[in-house]
Amino acid sequence: MTSFTKTSVSTSPGPDPGALMGLERAKACFDPRDMYQIIEGTPEKAHKILDLYQSLERDPILAPSFKDYELSRGENREQTTSRIARMTQYVEQEPYPDFWRRLNLMTAYDPSLGIRIAVNLGLFINCIKGNGTDAQYKYWCLEKEAKYMKQLWGCFGMTELGHGSNAAGVETTATFDAETDEFVINTPHIGATKWWIGGAAHSATHSSIYARLIVKGKDWGVKTFVVPLRDSNHQLMPGVAIGDIGSKMGREGVDNGWIQFSSVRIPRAFMLQKYCKVDRDGTVTLPPLEQLSYISLLQGRVGMASDLYRICARFITVATRYAVGRRQFRGDGAKKGEETQLINYPLHQRRLMPILALTYVAALATDRLERQHESVVEELETAVKLNDEKAIHKSLGDTKSLFVDSASLKSTLTWLAEQSITESRQACGGLGYSAYSGFGKSYADWVVQCTWEGDNNVLGMSAGRTIMKNVEDVLNKNAKISGTSLFLSKAHEYLGGELVLQTEADLNPTTVLWALEALIVRVAFEASKKRDESSSWDNVSYERVLLSKLRCHQYMLLTFIDAMANIGKPELLYILARVVRLYFLTHLLENFSREFVNYQVLCPKLSLQISTQFIGVSCLQVREQAITLTDSFQIPDTLLNSAIGGYDGNWYETYFKVVKTQNDITETKAPYSLDLEAMLNRLSYNERGRLEKSAESIEKLSH
Amino acid sequence: MTSFTKTSVSTSPGPDPGALMGLERAKACFDPRDMYQIIEGTPEKAHKILDLYQSLERDPILAPSFKDYELSRGENREQTTSRIARMTQYVEQEPYPDFWRRLNLMTAYDPSLGIRIAVNLGLFINCIKGNGTDAQYKYWCLEKEAKYMKQLWGCFGMTELGHGSNAAGVETTATFDAETDEFVINTPHIGATKWWIGGAAHSATHSSIYARLIVKGKDWGVKTFVVPLRDSNHQLMPGVAIGDIGSKMGREGVDNGWIQFSSVRIPRAFMLQKYCKVDRDGTVTLPPLEQLSYISLLQGRVGMASDLYRICARFITVATRYAVGRRQFRGDGAKKGEETQLINYPLHQRRLMPILALTYVAALATDRLERQHESVVEELETAVKLNDEKAIHKSLGDTKSLFVDSASLKSTLTWLAEQSITESRQACGGLGYSAYSGFGKSYADWVVQCTWEGDNNVLGMSAGRTIMKNVEDVLNKNAKISGTSLFLSKAHEYLGGELVLQTEADLNPTTVLWALEALIVRVAFEASKKRDESSSWDNVSYERVLLSKLRCHQYMLLTFIDAMANIGKPELLYILARVVRLYFLTHLLENFSREFVNYQVLCPKLSLQISTQFIGVSCLQVREQAITLTDSFQIPDTLLNSAIGGYDGNWYETYFKVVKTQNDITETKAPYSLDLEAMLNRLSYNERGRLEKSAESIEKLSH
Repeated sequence: MTSFTKTSVSTSPGPDPGALMGLERAKACFDPRDMYQIIEGTPEKAHKILDLYQSLERDPILAPSFKDYELSRGENREQTTSRIARMTQYVEQEPYPDFWRRLNLMTAYDPSLGIRIAVNLGLFINCIKGNGTDAQYKYWCLEKEAKYMKQLWGCFGMTELGHGSNAAGVETTATFDAETDEFVINTPHIGATKWWIGGAAHSATHSSIYARLIVKGKDWGVKTFVVPLRDSNHQLMPGVAIGDIGSKMGREGVDNGWIQFSSVRIPRAFMLQKYCKVDRDGTVTLPPLEQLSYISLLQGRVGMASDLYRICARFITVATRYAVGRRQFRGDGAKKGEETQLINYPLHQRRLMPILALTYVAALATDRLERQHESVVEELETAVKLNDEKAIHKSLGDTKSLFVDSASLKSTLTWLAEQSITESRQACGGLGYSAYSGFGKSYADWVVQCTWEGDNNVLGMSAGRTIMKNVEDVLNKNAKISGTSLFLSKAHEYLGGELVLQTEADLNPTTVLWALEALIVRVAFEASKKRDESSSWDNVSYERVLLSKLRCHQYMLLTFIDAMANIGKPELLYILARVVRLYFLTHLLENFSREFVNYQVLCPKLSLQISTQFIGVSCLQVREQAITLTDSFQIPDTLLNSAIGGYDGNWYETYFKVVKTQNDITETKAPYSLDLEAMLNRLSYNERGRLEKSAESIEKLSH
Repeated sequence: MTSFTKTSVSTSPGPDPGALMGLERAKACFDPRDMYQIIEGTPEKAHKILDLYQSLERDPILAPSFKDYELSRGENREQTTSRIARMTQYVEQEPYPDFWRRLNLMTAYDPSLGIRIAVNLGLFINCIKGNGTDAQYKYWCLEKEAKYMKQLWGCFGMTELGHGSNAAGVETTATFDAETDEFVINTPHIGATKWWIGGAAHSATHSSIYARLIVKGKDWGVKTFVVPLRDSNHQLMPGVAIGDIGSKMGREGVDNGWIQFSSVRIPRAFMLQKYCKVDRDGTVTLPPLEQLSYISLLQGRVGMASDLYRICARFITVATRYAVGRRQFRGDGAKKGEETQLINYPLHQRRLMPILALTYVAALATDRLERQHESVVEELETAVKLNDEKAIHKSLGDTKSLFVDSASLKSTLTWLAEQSITESRQACGGLGYSAYSGFGKSYADWVVQCTWEGDNNVLGMSAGRTIMKNVEDVLNKNAKISGTSLFLSKAHEYLGGELVLQTEADLNPTTVLWALEALIVRVAFEASKKRDESSSWDNVSYERVLLSKLRCHQYMLLTFIDAMANIGKPELLYILARVVRLYFLTHLLENFSREFVNYQVLCPKLSLQISTQFIGVSCLQVREQAITLTDSFQIPDTLLNSAIGGYDGNWYETYFKVVKTQNDITETKAPYSLDLEAMLNRLSYNERGRLEKSAESIEKLSH
């Protein structure tokens, strides 16, 4: 008698991944709760997040479920709307920063919801705040309660069908009519149709639109205007044509729309006039600090960089837990009759452990970026309010740093997340392709991050251009670079031709940071020469994007080194030292080995050793604590929402149950089964056909 | 008066991408119809494909449409079923190879259809053909008409929830009952549940299953059996439990299912007994050539490698046409008032042109692989039929070559396709994310190719292991390697330490091929040493996958060089020389520069020049003929099924029309609009709430 019953009847022993998970946890050499605080930056933030997690996992509307993976476009939109309605109840009564944190945590599993609210509260309102007067902000956002998702729902009418990245090129016109004291908003041709506008298709009552200001025939460039789209009955305003732009690769919960304006009139007071002003008789006052208006767009970029941490934490948790519980083939040293756990294969470690290390490094770096953003915005607002010119000047410098930092982190990290989700999914084999593991929807939802709010290549080129200019200023004019690019001030030193990384002893965070900085300067230096030879910035676009990526890593490595200096617990330091080592060996020295070697910062022999020896050892070191390192992210099962990634590791049972719950097993025939059966039981071609192939009929026809 | 009407009213001139497309075609320096024949291999094949394209674009059921991008899971399944029913009409009356070609072409736009039929006609029937006797094949496939998708619908019951890659480890049992002369098929535990079985959920009447043969208590390993799943009323047979495995990342048109057998009895004659036989009294005859049974699985791999060409041809056509018609920003040398076409930016060329080059090289290589597969199968069948031992031995050698070739091409090319679709999509900016450009669905459908029919890493390790062994045999035993790995026989020569690529003059196909072969041998040689040191094959898994990738490129480059030797038209040779140069500069020397430099095949200085100088020049050379090179794929608009990739280049008009057609513009309110409106017009928190916050109520409650 070999049969036995546990949860179900087995006639031979099946797999037991939960037990394997227990063995991993028994090996923990640090407390995941301690690590969690390091990852989130402060104990207060860490505590707040657990509070919010608890509130979210209990909320009947906001909590995710496996049904989320089955929704049609219409159902997805409806669900998102219910969740928005639920969120309006929180926005009124919890502190605003807590509300944003809640939204940020939800974005990791429902990015459609995240972006629908962020377009309204982030882009629309920030546009009014950044471009409007205090009175305008007060009127639209506070008096009309837009800030609390009440009365108004705003969308952000910047991009057009013909202009996405080049926002300064939009072609919608806002022509001043001095007679009526109004602006006439018009879409001159198909290319100027507002496109992709999130919330426009069905939700928005208002839009903050980007249009060319035309006064007395003169084009003053692109300014911003508040334009009502729907009346109080939620019917389209006259002259406003709006449609749904339809299906997308992902984010189906968002009602992106297109808008065409046919001579729509708005009062002059609806132009946002913090900087540029048009008075009653059409006199235009030029803004001294208009460049500052773009700072309102930075919040989105900063947030997207941070999103990498949450999304990677989610999926590396799933993939690592799966790798512990999954056995396949017998690897070297396998016990008799036992297959090897995926996580014990060196190749599998090499696929996943660098993602785990990246997640840690990015967590700290994006936390720093968030804080940097907050302080820059605050500093600027104060300086402008006090009209303190010196402070404004300093603030502008810091804003420029933030532009470079957010551009390079947003682009580099959204790309890395794209690759990390893909690799984690593939590491879960076929089950990674099942909707219920969560990868598919998240990937499709994620990848638009590489394109919107600054296409990654465009942002990369922009950051890279600034880096090149900084290095040129230092080398040619002995300039000092302030802010986070301070290290570029030492450009002369970095150009000295010595190989920085020669032996294994050089493979420590500080020396690698130095080497990376040297590489940045050398690439920039050579790129400047190349640009001068061809008199073309376009010819060094590749190098500019490369510089942006390297700069992102410099920011991350530096932040991690700084953070480690403040950690007291030796057991945390011990494992974090292993994490950062794996990070720089793989993401820096291996991935950019071509540049490190070719620009003579790293010797080829050491480069080869890194690939063939050190990375393997380093992966194994991180693998030892992999489960505790992922447990440290503290993501509850409900929010992980993956049938193969639960805390207890018992994914065979869980996954099968989810499949059976989501797909009624009593429906054994498909709705189209009769068609199938008729097809299989069809007559022969001759019997069915009308070619009258029988000898008899042909005989008759031939006479 | 600045307004004017063309197709619609404009008040200022809009974009005119169609005109730009005309300018590109005027620059053509070769005839795309000539090139098309080169790409497809022979004029006959090329002609046949155009015939099939015409038939497909006209067929009301088989032709794709933009509606395909909007289907729910249920609708998708239903549509796939209609298309299958339509295909059964072709299978009966067109030559079988033509039918497969038709299916292959459809797979580029409807992979769900492709795989549903391929599981039945490919995997199920090939399993019977490969493992069954002639009589068994004749019975099931011809007499019962399975080959014509009639009477039977077969699925392929190999993988289980607990065993995907390691098929030899499946745990379903087939126990011989000598008393009744039957096999008892049983699923012992949850891990042995058949999983992912395409067609099982609703379509299949039969399954060819992999199960452990147990006779008199002895486990004889995994054999194959035909097991009926549904009766003639299409109801589940007793003891058979089947369910839908539910939503997936893509391929929603496929009814993948799970199957559990509870002591299901089948006649002994349902075991496939070409090799292993069980006679009436339970005597098992061991097969001398059982390894040959796996050859039936190779067809799928070969097909998937070929799919790369069709899918990349489709999307590089879209992305290149879009890049011609799209202007954004003003690049260096832009004319006054004009933005620059994306395709004229060096970085954009560097993103797309290498994919175009890869598509050409892969087209020829996969055509060769298809022919190689056909001849190996034929050769083996003849040899076995004649029982010609010498021929069988030769044939086994060729089969081994095919294993390595198909494994390395399938894995390397499905990965490259995944990256190529992603890069092409991102190169179309926001519109790449619109469902109607076609990228999203195709990506989601595609990526499972990296996992199924041999997980890419598992295949890569397998191919790499063979390469290592071959090199060891040559170096240690002076063995000669036959077949397509012939070059490894020169391993001694390649090990000589000279740098192969030192100056620009070395950058020609033949020398690069030599360098690549040298790199393969050197990597294999070092990997063998590393394996010996650790006595572990697992420790060199990374190197084995690397070898597999390099081997794929060796196969491709060699094939291209051979093909060029047979091309007569100088204008084709001229552009193809540019294409292959770009291919090896980017996909080989840049992407593997770490290995080329570190294993001392390429000098670092040249490597740097390749990245910073030669690739840019080479991209520009290919860009000049990019439209003609993509026109040469001859994909008709209907089958391209992309709103931004049409032949005429007028994507603004086309895309807008598709969006308006697919999304009724008269429905200005969403079905959930009332919820939204109620939310915006809600009472205040205090008015709504039950916290009785009014001073009056608190006053009352406090007494």
